[in-house]
Amino acid sequence: MKLTRVKGMRDFIGKDALFRKFIIDNFEKVFRIYGYDPLESPALEMWETLSAKGGEEIEAETFKFKDKGNRDVGLRFDLTVPLARIVATNPVIPKPFKRYAIGKVWRYDQPQAGRYREFTQADVDIIGVKDMIADAEVISVAIDALKPIIGEHFKIRLNNRKVLKGMIELAGISESLSFECFRAIDKLDKIGIKGVKKELNQRGITGEQVDALMEFLDLRGAPEKILPQVEELMQKSWIGSDGVMELAHLLDYLDFMGNLQFIELDLSLARGLDYYTGPIFEVAYTKYEGIGSIGAGGRYDNLIKKLGGVPTSATGISLGVDRIIDILIKTKQVPEDLGGIDIYVVAIGNEVHEHALKITQKLRSLGLITEYELMGRNLRKALKYADMRGAKFMIAIGQKDIENNTVSIRDMNKKSQFTVPISELYREIIELLKA
Amino acid sequence: MKLTRVKGMRDFIGKDALFRKFIIDNFEKVFRIYGYDPLESPALEMWETLSAKGGEEIEAETFKFKDKGNRDVGLRFDLTVPLARIVATNPVIPKPFKRYAIGKVWRYDQPQAGRYREFTQADVDIIGVKDMIADAEVISVAIDALKPIIGEHFKIRLNNRKVLKGMIELAGISESLSFECFRAIDKLDKIGIKGVKKELNQRGITGEQVDALMEFLDLRGAPEKILPQVEELMQKSWIGSDGVMELAHLLDYLDFMGNLQFIELDLSLARGLDYYTGPIFEVAYTKYEGIGSIGAGGRYDNLIKKLGGVPTSATGISLGVDRIIDILIKTKQVPEDLGGIDIYVVAIGNEVHEHALKITQKLRSLGLITEYELMGRNLRKALKYADMRGAKFMIAIGQKDIENNTVSIRDMNKKSQFTVPISELYREIIELLKA
Repeated sequence: MKLTRVKGMRDFIGKDALFRKFIIDNFEKVFRIYGYDPLESPALEMWETLSAKGGEEIEAETFKFKDKGNRDVGLRFDLTVPLARIVATNPVIPKPFKRYAIGKVWRYDQPQAGRYREFTQADVDIIGVKDMIADAEVISVAIDALKPIIGEHFKIRLNNRKVLKGMIELAGISESLSFECFRAIDKLDKIGIKGVKKELNQRGITGEQVDALMEFLDLRGAPEKILPQVEELMQKSWIGSDGVMELAHLLDYLDFMGNLQFIELDLSLARGLDYYTGPIFEVAYTKYEGIGSIGAGGRYDNLIKKLGGVPTSATGISLGVDRIIDILIKTKQVPEDLGGIDIYVVAIGNEVHEHALKITQKLRSLGLITEYELMGRNLRKALKYADMRGAKFMIAIGQKDIENNTVSIRDMNKKSQFTVPISELYREIIELLKA
Repeated sequence: MKLTRVKGMRDFIGKDALFRKFIIDNFEKVFRIYGYDPLESPALEMWETLSAKGGEEIEAETFKFKDKGNRDVGLRFDLTVPLARIVATNPVIPKPFKRYAIGKVWRYDQPQAGRYREFTQADVDIIGVKDMIADAEVISVAIDALKPIIGEHFKIRLNNRKVLKGMIELAGISESLSFECFRAIDKLDKIGIKGVKKELNQRGITGEQVDALMEFLDLRGAPEKILPQVEELMQKSWIGSDGVMELAHLLDYLDFMGNLQFIELDLSLARGLDYYTGPIFEVAYTKYEGIGSIGAGGRYDNLIKKLGGVPTSATGISLGVDRIIDILIKTKQVPEDLGGIDIYVVAIGNEVHEHALKITQKLRSLGLITEYELMGRNLRKALKYADMRGAKFMIAIGQKDIENNTVSIRDMNKKSQFTVPISELYREIIELLKA
């Protein structure tokens, strides 16, 4: 029998698992500092909930099935829809409702480098705030969560769905085609300008209209340079001007929060999801090409209503934990000292187990990471194992130590050993570990 | 549209989510102290893997479905089978392999109080150690993980599959019926002695045989009292004597580790799962009846081979996070000070956002949990909100503060306020938070 993992899914063992925990703990710390509380929702949602978000690709991308009660259910494909479901069905939750969620999501994508069928998202969202200050805050959380992990090698690409709608209006394209336009534009990075043009043509948009649209899509750069140009162009569109005003407010707040230097206005940013209604953003890693986005988000003021709730403002951002980890592994930025143990205790001979285990339990009760030799290794093999495990100290206990009331300690880094009276062991080892 | 959660599954919001994190973080800390490394495996496993463990109830209890590639897959129902799959397919992993895993598992059970279709297990396992010291260690990890959380109100019920097989042999029951016997005995708590008798009769076991078995099942109590009786009874069974020897060794180690007082030998403990081969154990909460077990485990020396790997010793224990949380909520033992924020900053008027946001970002950069007023509340409403959020301090910033280079701080507990020069704010607030 040859067992396999499910295609596109991964195990994380040893250092890999410790590194994931390190990243997630760091994200969590920043989310908490900004005043977000955790929220956990089930892996499975009713299909009714998952599909309410709309978009034709949802069904193809979801692990959907019938449970034993013949109900259509599916594995969540993001953390936003479950949040919207919770808010829609719990209208009494006090606003603003600021929550973070770090969890697995599942998509039936074609597995490829950087794309997995099970992956981890780290999300912050603010529910109930209409003002652009909420969008500025979630973007700032993402910036502060990323900086200690990947340095300043990233940009936040920024656009606004209302500006995109303005573009479509000004290009003379019917509003009913706007979502199809968004989805075509979203593929710009993947299929290029020619590809987008072709897709738009196929959807019944004329060459002239496409050309008009394309003019806007070229606008990208520093906000102070691009925003006045967009404002100028949008003067004849009500909705476009609304979008420009939102962007201006958002950029002000981002400036106040000291984060303007991370922002790039990019009118070609569209995002594939249907639910966005205002600002949309994507985090791009800038040190290497071809990484794809490492985070994305936007305002989705209609989603909670779509899920049967009271109309409620909402905005959020999602960081792609796996892509960020892939970057750090690829660029050899994994910290050396993850995991590792403080003390490794070896009993020399079965008759000293009682004594050695008592010492071990005492060390553990002091909060020291202590491993006990379980395989009956001799001293030479134990030494090799201690080295492999990255133990800082090794304690060997033999019959003689019991007679003399002593313990032998080996400093694994200095490769030196010494004997201490058992009465001084705990004080001594705590001192040594502090040094 | 009325959206619902998937039956038997739950959301965790606010304090509930914070409390879960608190429990899990505490477990994790103890697991690390004992030298266990984390391991993460996918939610989905191939059906081939999930079903290899055996047992007729697996298919009925698993969320099993066909993926879009027509492969049979299922949501994992425990964390042991994925671990065994990983070890079976990675024979080079150095032994002992000590891993912990805290994660969701899914079972298509009938939802009822304390039983959910999605729940969280916290597992420690040791792979590659034949000696009973491994079983003693995983039991001790569980004890040390539970003590700070639920006090000493629990017992570890202990038995051994080899002793159970000895019982079956001595009762004159065919060995081929042993797993059916285990499963029937396992239901003792649920269906009572009469129920077990009836089940055993239905499986073709005679009344006389059942009576012989029942004599053993009554043996339960302190190890020093019960073990000699079991030893005596098992003298005519090779496998039973093997089991007694294992129990004696295990109890010695548990004594050395200072944990014997938690142990109760209980010959009626059988565990439903087929894969156990040696010691089996269950954690029972003793302060209240009817809680069911809050943890369980045992030795499963054949599972890795069954999954196509090299024969490898293995033992482990699994704590039921949800049951433990249910107990603590029921007994009002949820800590008061979970979550909460250090500082809540309010800008009085839109024109001070720039100034107030700069202060906020500085407070956050110092690691202080800081929330910024996002709804444009006035001071009165903001005060009420700060109270509801459990903020320790509130900072209000108005136009006058900018002119005077000051900030107003309110101590939310003392209900007192004072003004400090902005230059002293950060030092001052750190001092106040320390106090």
